[in-house]
Amino acid sequence: MIDLHGQQFIGSQASAESSDTFQGFNPATSKALPTLFHEATEGEIDKALQLAASAFDEFRRTTPEQRAIFLDTLADEVEALGDQLLDQANAETGLPIPRCTGERGRATNQARQFAELLRDGSWVDARIDLPNPDREPLPKPDVRSMMLPVGPVVVFGASNFPIAISVLGADVVSSFAAGCPVVVKAHPAHPGTCELSSQAVLSAIKKCGLPEGTFSLIHGRSYETGLSLVRHPATQAVAFTGSLAGGRALADAAAARPNPIPVYAEMGSANPIFLLPGALKERASQIGSDYIQSVTLGVGQFCTCPGLVFGIESEDLNTFTASAAEGAQNSPLATMLHPGIYESFWKGVNAIEALDGFSLAGQSTDKAEVNKNHAACTIFETTSSALSDNPQLYDEVFGPVSTITKCQSTSELEQFASQLDGSLTATIHGTEEDLAEYAGLIHILETKVGRLIFNGYPTGIEVCHAMHHGGPYPAASHSHFTSIGTRCIYRFVRPVCYQGWPQAALPPELQDSNPLGIFRLLDGDFTQSPA
Amino acid sequence: MIDLHGQQFIGSQASAESSDTFQGFNPATSKALPTLFHEATEGEIDKALQLAASAFDEFRRTTPEQRAIFLDTLADEVEALGDQLLDQANAETGLPIPRCTGERGRATNQARQFAELLRDGSWVDARIDLPNPDREPLPKPDVRSMMLPVGPVVVFGASNFPIAISVLGADVVSSFAAGCPVVVKAHPAHPGTCELSSQAVLSAIKKCGLPEGTFSLIHGRSYETGLSLVRHPATQAVAFTGSLAGGRALADAAAARPNPIPVYAEMGSANPIFLLPGALKERASQIGSDYIQSVTLGVGQFCTCPGLVFGIESEDLNTFTASAAEGAQNSPLATMLHPGIYESFWKGVNAIEALDGFSLAGQSTDKAEVNKNHAACTIFETTSSALSDNPQLYDEVFGPVSTITKCQSTSELEQFASQLDGSLTATIHGTEEDLAEYAGLIHILETKVGRLIFNGYPTGIEVCHAMHHGGPYPAASHSHFTSIGTRCIYRFVRPVCYQGWPQAALPPELQDSNPLGIFRLLDGDFTQSPA
Repeated sequence: MIDLHGQQFIGSQASAESSDTFQGFNPATSKALPTLFHEATEGEIDKALQLAASAFDEFRRTTPEQRAIFLDTLADEVEALGDQLLDQANAETGLPIPRCTGERGRATNQARQFAELLRDGSWVDARIDLPNPDREPLPKPDVRSMMLPVGPVVVFGASNFPIAISVLGADVVSSFAAGCPVVVKAHPAHPGTCELSSQAVLSAIKKCGLPEGTFSLIHGRSYETGLSLVRHPATQAVAFTGSLAGGRALADAAAARPNPIPVYAEMGSANPIFLLPGALKERASQIGSDYIQSVTLGVGQFCTCPGLVFGIESEDLNTFTASAAEGAQNSPLATMLHPGIYESFWKGVNAIEALDGFSLAGQSTDKAEVNKNHAACTIFETTSSALSDNPQLYDEVFGPVSTITKCQSTSELEQFASQLDGSLTATIHGTEEDLAEYAGLIHILETKVGRLIFNGYPTGIEVCHAMHHGGPYPAASHSHFTSIGTRCIYRFVRPVCYQGWPQAALPPELQDSNPLGIFRLLDGDFTQSPA
Repeated sequence: MIDLHGQQFIGSQASAESSDTFQGFNPATSKALPTLFHEATEGEIDKALQLAASAFDEFRRTTPEQRAIFLDTLADEVEALGDQLLDQANAETGLPIPRCTGERGRATNQARQFAELLRDGSWVDARIDLPNPDREPLPKPDVRSMMLPVGPVVVFGASNFPIAISVLGADVVSSFAAGCPVVVKAHPAHPGTCELSSQAVLSAIKKCGLPEGTFSLIHGRSYETGLSLVRHPATQAVAFTGSLAGGRALADAAAARPNPIPVYAEMGSANPIFLLPGALKERASQIGSDYIQSVTLGVGQFCTCPGLVFGIESEDLNTFTASAAEGAQNSPLATMLHPGIYESFWKGVNAIEALDGFSLAGQSTDKAEVNKNHAACTIFETTSSALSDNPQLYDEVFGPVSTITKCQSTSELEQFASQLDGSLTATIHGTEEDLAEYAGLIHILETKVGRLIFNGYPTGIEVCHAMHHGGPYPAASHSHFTSIGTRCIYRFVRPVCYQGWPQAALPPELQDSNPLGIFRLLDGDFTQSPA
């Protein structure tokens, strides 16, 4: 068992310069947890980033194999924390132990997946254009390029994934894979989970002989702590998962720096579902009950929770709605992550309920217990005209609440699709015939979202090479980049080009002989052959 | 011969709502050119972007082959403009006809290079992760993704490349290749060249049957015209080549939008050269004369003009400096692009001359003629301590001026390298032994620049797959992206992911059979095989 100390980690050193402290909180009991966590001072933030900057020169020049071993070791060290990590996450978030166990599996798989990516090596986008000294009118130079790390990265973890999108998340392990030191801002809703996770990271750093400053952890509840991390001159990129307001504030601060840096913020979305007639005819009731499973997964506290459903008015749509309503009524109440989210959820639900033209289709019938921060799965029903009058509904209400809109026509479906803000996902339930008939709708959605799901659900994201977890603003701050899946490493690298460089001084990835056997773009063709 | 009308092109329609006009200007004669160009109104800007937005749905769904044919046609149409394009560019910029001819070749090659990229097809980063319905605890879904266009792009061309980095530049042709409609803000220093170039683009659009609004041209001198283009809700990305102040203003406006969009600004840099002892010993005099060729190329009006040289004090360095000084003295005067650049150049030169510790090493001895906006190649010499006292020297003075700094030690070289702002390039002259001995310096430069040149010169950029023309701020606004070379297409695309999607409804790039025969990342491995 590790005793929590509630301090920053400046590299491997615990530090508590401030006596301003806060505590974790168990939302399932409404009781504060014992450890006092110390707010970071400006001096501690500066030390962490100075140390990261000084670690960068050595860390970025580790070999891919060294970083792969580090990530494998990190995964092992996370597992070595045993149940303490799960118990801590459970206590701080109310998420059940099986869910925490699942998250841990995702985190360790993710770290090992990046180790595999590094061993494969082709991700660096190595390009070689061979010289031609005889070209007229000018000789063609030898030009080669590959991705290299950008420098220290600041990561803000998410409240809703205390293990898999926090200190041990893809933002951190992809930064490490790229060769970037990381300073994590611990989420104040699970500071103990962050501290324990950091122990695993620091232990792996020590075992692998990596430089002090490869990782630091900073605690703080205040807005200013986050802004100071983003504004620090050593910070070269920022990753954030959380609310639109939070992500935008960091992005604005980064854009206003003397030298602006990118903030890769994933800020959630409404994740609309479109129910097409063929699918409703075949299985309206089944879609209704599966939809409720998706809405309630993780107590609806997923960035991909489907908040809006659109279908054309019909008996089949009524069957879907009745099935969803029944599913909602039978859903158990569940504890939300913290009182702030709980209050926002109920405020959002009550606001929708008060709207003209919106009716409650179904809601958990369980009786909420005191001090458990319980959310009830809540499904509303409305008409296209009532939704049109309330565009604020396009914004996400975080939690297990969703609204079914009855449209009158295909063109109304298309109109709503056009009016949507950028979204992480859109889901279509349909037959293949539906897809052909509703091609116009699909074409609109392709320009609005990062991921299109057919006859499935947006929650339960697969961590793989082809995954894209991002989308047009406000789903993400930069639609070119993903925060989940191996492609997320590209946030933390930039191309560096070597012109006329001697073989011996080139990185192995760019040497003629291709010693790592990676795929390269050689004079415009992909090949593993030597140059 | 095409008669210039001086109007906007809103799609193919000429439009002149405002009677506020301006004229092109011949810097070699200081005479205004006859055509009156109409400032765009807010209404015209809105029409151009509305039209681009409406063209997007059709244009983005053209096949790669259709867009390749369009780019080939565009290149043909540019050639069909004949000498008129060259004469117009020459008259508006003072750049000699051979240079304009070279630029035209670069522009047409670039368009055809993107056509080739589209026909090859592998650039789309297609990824397929196959499903596994039997996986425990959860089935693995079918996940596929590829790059799709972001939407209408606004392009601000550069003053210094009226043909190759303007209406016919990589920003425009890579947007087209991606499937994005383009609205170009014509550079007010070569509006006639922009109008003629637009005729070629519009002719290609017409011949290829592409939608009205695929391209528009907007004229304007005012800051507000640019800001309105960036702030328009239909604009999804911006490309800019020009000054730091201009690029930053656009980036700030884009970041402050309700939905921020990326501005890809390439803003120039100091492009330092480091002279290592082995190279100086072997060929100090030759490096000195070649350096002057690089400084004076295009009258020093290249983003990659080498503005700073560093070497360790020695007889060999003196030989280099003497050779450079002689080269400068023998350099002919040459006309700068426009009076504004001419005035800034001389203001910058005079400011350096007035500094303590800076001495004039050599300057063109030609006598400047009246009204020719002549720049004189000017080389200063200084000491490390004097340079340290004047960090403003790290900023670019646009034109053929460069400063040689005599350092006392390797650590001084490294210190200057560390203090440099982000730069497009750094150049090393050395032997292979020098490279090994100065590894610390190279390691620093790798974190500061986009391109490292060995025993060459930064000017005369090769347009190829491996080229990176970008770098840490302020060289570029986002170090991950290049503005020259085929990789620049990635600025205008974003991944879209299809989950559980039926084969027939997938883009060809993602279908199992791989009908286009492209390289794809299939379960993590690059292959051209079917899935």
